[in-house]
Amino acid sequence: MNDIDFPSLLAEISSAVRPLSARGKVADYIPALGSVDPARFGIAFATVEGKVFAHGDATERFSVQSIAKVFALSLVLAGEGESTKLWRRVGREPSGNPFNSLIQLELERGIPRNPFINAGALVVVDHLLAMTGDSFSAVRSFVRAESGSADVDLDAEVARSEALHGHRNAALAHFMKSCDNLSNPVGQVLDHYFRQCSLAMSCVELARTGLFLARHGECADGTQLFSSSDAKRVNAVMLTCGTYDAAGELAFRVGLPAKSGVGGGILAILPGRGALCAWGPALHKSGNSITGVEALDRFTTHTGWSIF
Amino acid sequence: MNDIDFPSLLAEISSAVRPLSARGKVADYIPALGSVDPARFGIAFATVEGKVFAHGDATERFSVQSIAKVFALSLVLAGEGESTKLWRRVGREPSGNPFNSLIQLELERGIPRNPFINAGALVVVDHLLAMTGDSFSAVRSFVRAESGSADVDLDAEVARSEALHGHRNAALAHFMKSCDNLSNPVGQVLDHYFRQCSLAMSCVELARTGLFLARHGECADGTQLFSSSDAKRVNAVMLTCGTYDAAGELAFRVGLPAKSGVGGGILAILPGRGALCAWGPALHKSGNSITGVEALDRFTTHTGWSIF
Amino acid sequence: MNDIDFPSLLAEISSAVRPLSARGKVADYIPALGSVDPARFGIAFATVEGKVFAHGDATERFSVQSIAKVFALSLVLAGEGESTKLWRRVGREPSGNPFNSLIQLELERGIPRNPFINAGALVVVDHLLAMTGDSFSAVRSFVRAESGSADVDLDAEVARSEALHGHRNAALAHFMKSCDNLSNPVGQVLDHYFRQCSLAMSCVELARTGLFLARHGECADGTQLFSSSDAKRVNAVMLTCGTYDAAGELAFRVGLPAKSGVGGGILAILPGRGALCAWGPALHKSGNSITGVEALDRFTTHTGWSIF
Amino acid sequence: MNDIDFPSLLAEISSAVRPLSARGKVADYIPALGSVDPARFGIAFATVEGKVFAHGDATERFSVQSIAKVFALSLVLAGEGESTKLWRRVGREPSGNPFNSLIQLELERGIPRNPFINAGALVVVDHLLAMTGDSFSAVRSFVRAESGSADVDLDAEVARSEALHGHRNAALAHFMKSCDNLSNPVGQVLDHYFRQCSLAMSCVELARTGLFLARHGECADGTQLFSSSDAKRVNAVMLTCGTYDAAGELAFRVGLPAKSGVGGGILAILPGRGALCAWGPALHKSGNSITGVEALDRFTTHTGWSIF
Repeated sequence: MNDIDFPSLLAEISSAVRPLSARGKVADYIPALGSVDPARFGIAFATVEGKVFAHGDATERFSVQSIAKVFALSLVLAGEGESTKLWRRVGREPSGNPFNSLIQLELERGIPRNPFINAGALVVVDHLLAMTGDSFSAVRSFVRAESGSADVDLDAEVARSEALHGHRNAALAHFMKSCDNLSNPVGQVLDHYFRQCSLAMSCVELARTGLFLARHGECADGTQLFSSSDAKRVNAVMLTCGTYDAAGELAFRVGLPAKSGVGGGILAILPGRGALCAWGPALHKSGNSITGVEALDRFTTHTGWSIF
Repeated sequence: MNDIDFPSLLAEISSAVRPLSARGKVADYIPALGSVDPARFGIAFATVEGKVFAHGDATERFSVQSIAKVFALSLVLAGEGESTKLWRRVGREPSGNPFNSLIQLELERGIPRNPFINAGALVVVDHLLAMTGDSFSAVRSFVRAESGSADVDLDAEVARSEALHGHRNAALAHFMKSCDNLSNPVGQVLDHYFRQCSLAMSCVELARTGLFLARHGECADGTQLFSSSDAKRVNAVMLTCGTYDAAGELAFRVGLPAKSGVGGGILAILPGRGALCAWGPALHKSGNSITGVEALDRFTTHTGWSIF
Repeated sequence: MNDIDFPSLLAEISSAVRPLSARGKVADYIPALGSVDPARFGIAFATVEGKVFAHGDATERFSVQSIAKVFALSLVLAGEGESTKLWRRVGREPSGNPFNSLIQLELERGIPRNPFINAGALVVVDHLLAMTGDSFSAVRSFVRAESGSADVDLDAEVARSEALHGHRNAALAHFMKSCDNLSNPVGQVLDHYFRQCSLAMSCVELARTGLFLARHGECADGTQLFSSSDAKRVNAVMLTCGTYDAAGELAFRVGLPAKSGVGGGILAILPGRGALCAWGPALHKSGNSITGVEALDRFTTHTGWSIF
Repeated sequence: MNDIDFPSLLAEISSAVRPLSARGKVADYIPALGSVDPARFGIAFATVEGKVFAHGDATERFSVQSIAKVFALSLVLAGEGESTKLWRRVGREPSGNPFNSLIQLELERGIPRNPFINAGALVVVDHLLAMTGDSFSAVRSFVRAESGSADVDLDAEVARSEALHGHRNAALAHFMKSCDNLSNPVGQVLDHYFRQCSLAMSCVELARTGLFLARHGECADGTQLFSSSDAKRVNAVMLTCGTYDAAGELAFRVGLPAKSGVGGGILAILPGRGALCAWGPALHKSGNSITGVEALDRFTTHTGWSIF
């Protein structure tokens, strides 16, 4: 890794991908997201050795949205290990459907296909809520500790907006409740879920937070969150299910475990090397950041660091 | 009609169908329905001339459930006529799926296929609520007037039970809200819907109430609820969509417009002749009363009064 | 019926509906159908008393396509009666999907929902083939006898064209063969099916042929094809399943059992009164003739002869 | 790699997994496959340095079935490179459905989701057929060269049996033909596909053949089949789509690109290290070898050689 000039590489990538933002569309299902400037772009690479390289709007906070699903899942596995009953309530297969589809959920009787589609993430929140009594605070404490930013918090306007426009997620939650796959009250699960989605973090903070997956489960303070097997498993779920209905495409083009959010962020793990986070609010119709995915593609092409 | 001995016919039908109740299963998704004795059976035939013939438990009130959907739809058409915008919000096609399926609703972007599947009935309630300010009271007033029983009302325990176990309907309602196909708050629509389902009426009362459809739109008091064209249209929707996923089967076997409910009632219209209501709580897996459908079949076979 | 001036009525209907043809599109999946002039229009009404009224291109032969499915089904029921095993191989429920969809067929494991979607019609042909050894000839003999036109035959160019472009139907047939729901070789079933679809008949001939369903099963020569119960059942299947994914709409608007074909023909039954056939090649996106459906609507509105 | 005792490891794995065969079921959709002894088990590991370790029935030939799809895909990419139009005809997303489902194919208008479900593999064969004039011979020549066994060939009885019972695949092919996504005649594509599936190879031969993917595109003779990027891409498709509806599960448990066949074989790639092939005819309901998947799991657990 000594021979790669990361500052130059990230700068080159930024220049190359910024123009692509014009081809995408900022998420506008809630007003709070729709007002973000589509031309923003930031990128940060945190190494397992502790260095952080960044470029552009890399310290600007944005709505992490679905990226937080990785942390909630990791906390469930950290708390319960291999004996977790979570996998009786949610599968591990790619979904082959839009991320908020009810169709698959009904065909499979209320058992979401994986923990990263919205239905699955609601189950994870419900599970973590039962484990901790406060799912949102558990996730927030974790990202504060790993990112090193004690002031990471939710964007209250986004959270309110999510709740107001969250009828699709409410439909998923009520359906699963009707299948006995939610243990807490529907309203409570939705509340913790919406707040978790509304966490605001920067590329630098997300890259730092993602390092525990690159370091085989080791946290920022040197303690072990969970086993290296668990870290590998979370990476595997990210690779096969982390980018909505484009996971196959991303594995083909980029070849890294990654999780995206409709806020325009995307966090990728390079096992043993580091964590890379890019942010560009303009989305491809698949729901992934156009500039973010292109940035990851260029990073792995240049470094040769695909996992395959 | 003079030469048919209805009292004997209804008695014969009762004897013939009662043993079939053992083959079915009482609806048990809510405790209040599950406790009904599956062996009960009643049947009533009200003629357009004003006579009523009845047998068995024909004056025993039961939970009308989906049968009330016919009255809510009729009130919307009565109030708005051909210019109603209801048909922009709900289709008129048979559904080919279980009556509370989310799959079709999602494939068709929140426009229910017809007003008698649950999603469609929720839209009808929402529409009637916007028209009247109180959908439930409008339906209750109507059935009180037509049945001649001023004390017809909801079964409060059933209504409470519906609300407690109504997560599937809540999922449908939230999904349609996310598609902008509900104008009132989700909770309010569900409340009126659950109360409407919980109306308790007897076979005699339901047969009397159904007469307006046999009399081409004429109410019990001689006024016209709506045009004879509207009456035909409601009959057509009952024939093609009135008995869940068994409408084709019922048209084939019975050949009458009919609407069933999971409380075990089924109301059939004989245009120009009368209305027939049977009740038997044991349901076929299609959701229709086993003894009720068989009773209708025998009635039309004997009288030759299919519409085909 | 004495007081209706049918010649004038049919002429008025023709004038009113002809302009609508511009809103539709002639079926063009095979060249032989695509070359028909979309502005053609014919209508014929045959009464149970034996009179025939006609207007426009009512003696022009066109490709009957799916209308022939009614005759094949009737011949199976005529040959096997109530004990037929056909209903173990095909359902009687409306389909709620395009008429050549594989999705529903797979979800229901190779048992088509009804005998009028393509998959179901292939099963009927397979069944009739096993009964008679020559399904196509059986249907042709029947329509020749009932229409009174001994020279009714297939359009060889259409039949060839169907076979060349019949990959969707071949997919359906192979799928059902894989589910053990075809007894004859796939190629043979397809051949008889394509020839049956390619029969060329006029409105007058089709209206005459349809009379057996209006006369409760009685053929042109006074013999009984099947019981009046069977006639009612075929009518019921026509009403609920006869016009692709618009059966509910047609029941609502027209209120008659009817079967349409993509050649632009539509045959409606008025039980006890007669059979009405209209032809206009321009199709609505549902696959039904635009002018044909409108003509039926006007005919029943004027006469008041809906079944409801 | 020096410190791993592969002969002992493979022996231990064999002992551990053999008893599991009782939990599965040999594929019996064709008689030729159904007669194989479920208790057979073989495993072979070929290293990029050229060593081969094997245990059990590792030199016994079995029907490779879907494993051959990897080689056909690789030959298309080798011939056309990045400019290939194959990806306009087939996607790269996991399917989330049984491998021979028509439903998804219809929903996505004849474009299979990936090259490893049957529909996608038929498109690959069609593409290779257009490129080479003889798809089957191209694949056979390739596996002969890479495995070093010049007598590798199809099992004629299996090929005949596949063709006789191939109605599901014929349905897929006819459907895609109707969507203009097959260029060659349906019968010809099926013939090449069935023969390709019927190739008989041993674990040792398959492991040796798979080495080009572990060596970043380099063939047995030192020439480059395609670029290292292409090799990574094939590995990515194997990881996300290679094991039917259990790809997510396999990534989670094993963490290696792999392709399985219903003959009971499974071939996994360890990039930069080697290729591992296990064979056990008893299948899990997902279609993957029960003993084979367990063997891969134990191999990666012991060596720590997951890609994550």
